[in-house]
Amino acid sequence: MGTPGFASRWFDVRAKHGPLVFGLDPSAGVLRDWGFDDTADGLERFVDVALEGAAGAVGVVKPQSAFYERHGWRGARALTRLVADARSAELLVLLDVKRGDIGSTNEAYAAAYLGDDAAIPADAITLAPYLGLGAMGAFFERAVAAAAGLFVVIRSSNPEGRRLQESRDVEGRSVEQQLVAELRERNDAVAPDGVGPFGAVMAATREPPRDIDLRAMNGLFLAPGLGAQGSTIEEIAECFAACPDRVLASASRSLLAAGPDRSRLRDEVLAQAAAATAALGGRS
Amino acid sequence: MGTPGFASRWFDVRAKHGPLVFGLDPSAGVLRDWGFDDTADGLERFVDVALEGAAGAVGVVKPQSAFYERHGWRGARALTRLVADARSAELLVLLDVKRGDIGSTNEAYAAAYLGDDAAIPADAITLAPYLGLGAMGAFFERAVAAAAGLFVVIRSSNPEGRRLQESRDVEGRSVEQQLVAELRERNDAVAPDGVGPFGAVMAATREPPRDIDLRAMNGLFLAPGLGAQGSTIEEIAECFAACPDRVLASASRSLLAAGPDRSRLRDEVLAQAAAATAALGGRS
Repeated sequence: MGTPGFASRWFDVRAKHGPLVFGLDPSAGVLRDWGFDDTADGLERFVDVALEGAAGAVGVVKPQSAFYERHGWRGARALTRLVADARSAELLVLLDVKRGDIGSTNEAYAAAYLGDDAAIPADAITLAPYLGLGAMGAFFERAVAAAAGLFVVIRSSNPEGRRLQESRDVEGRSVEQQLVAELRERNDAVAPDGVGPFGAVMAATREPPRDIDLRAMNGLFLAPGLGAQGSTIEEIAECFAACPDRVLASASRSLLAAGPDRSRLRDEVLAQAAAATAALGGRS
Repeated sequence: MGTPGFASRWFDVRAKHGPLVFGLDPSAGVLRDWGFDDTADGLERFVDVALEGAAGAVGVVKPQSAFYERHGWRGARALTRLVADARSAELLVLLDVKRGDIGSTNEAYAAAYLGDDAAIPADAITLAPYLGLGAMGAFFERAVAAAAGLFVVIRSSNPEGRRLQESRDVEGRSVEQQLVAELRERNDAVAPDGVGPFGAVMAATREPPRDIDLRAMNGLFLAPGLGAQGSTIEEIAECFAACPDRVLASASRSLLAAGPDRSRLRDEVLAQAAAATAALGGRS
């Protein structure tokens, strides 16, 4: 037996820490509020404090690549260290990069972020599907080989994406439905008896979606924007009532607001982790 | 007067060198074929040879970020040097990153790549629009402030993207039409009397698109995949017959195949640049 697949690894950390994901998003505003320089050195200090708040309190951290790329190659170096230190602390790293291209470009992105020999070896990454999931074979293949996970953006939390995401093909299926159907096919192919490694980023709506069978996708869901960006944990539980055990609920700003004091940050992470577990289940 | 807008700067380099764009895509295969190590050091050697082939022969280079990210932070450092050296050699840099997210994440991406104070200051970047152009305000604003360009992926060169890109909203407009209409509005707002800075990545079709008024978009077009990836320069000229002067025709593998011999590479770049000018116009 090799490393278990990403879903299996996630169920393990969920049983210990519940479904909360800690978004490590060091925006200029956060660095300022924490009293750190808006430089790569400030970023390194942020990484230290944030990981201390996360380790042993949540199962998954989700760095948003943009906030590291903003500091150029030194920011990429800080992200590299973040990923290594997080994994040493038994945190899963879901790297939010929203990549997606075609052909050999996807091979290069997959090699950059998936697998132990990757430059920045994440446990899972996010993908943007505008060029079609059919073009993303390099990601799917490498994710299976590396026991890594993929989260494809299906429904974003912002209203400006709705027109595109709700557009329909000639058979009347929305873009969201098309993509979920493709994820289901791929999950069924690699994990016919369980939950597969190909998940969806899906912002919570106030009611469960009527036109998408969430449970049938046989994959995990990343629900972004818990707290400051709008969703409450109760809304997330309502939206994903068909499969609450498969939801990764991600909070960032509402947690980071408690820093940089280490004990206040940790208390806030533990409190929100407990609330997420109460709403969605978890911790055996 | 500040720096002229991106379209104006592009028309200037087109008048000197024509419409060919040199894609700097150091895949593992290219590095191997060139006899360079598949490491960040090999990447640095690639940058030197490729820029020598480009400078004075084309107006624009287009590095594909994935091939640099694959080498981690050292790859990002090589890309940083590439951008600086290219701009010193009076090449415009169109950085192919296909980023796109929401809110403060887009602010961070825009700060990473647009403007003289950016970590990697490109002259233009590509964007992926799955989360809606309405969410991309940070990119549009910074591009105008920095006299930079944006190229939003509208139609990709691969067949797997067609179903999504041809899906239609409740008014019957395809995703492509929706996005082109938004680009037109934004170009009309910032450049009512000229060609605006907001372009489209649009793969050439064998005939001009019937449902999109290319000229009315008032922006530039990046036609990818010239040569090895399928389009001929004649197909590109046919597809964009309504506005051949606004087309950046990008070739990569067919040019790189002539390296690493410096004079053979340069001869190939000059030959393809002449063919692109013959088909699309340019060089005053």
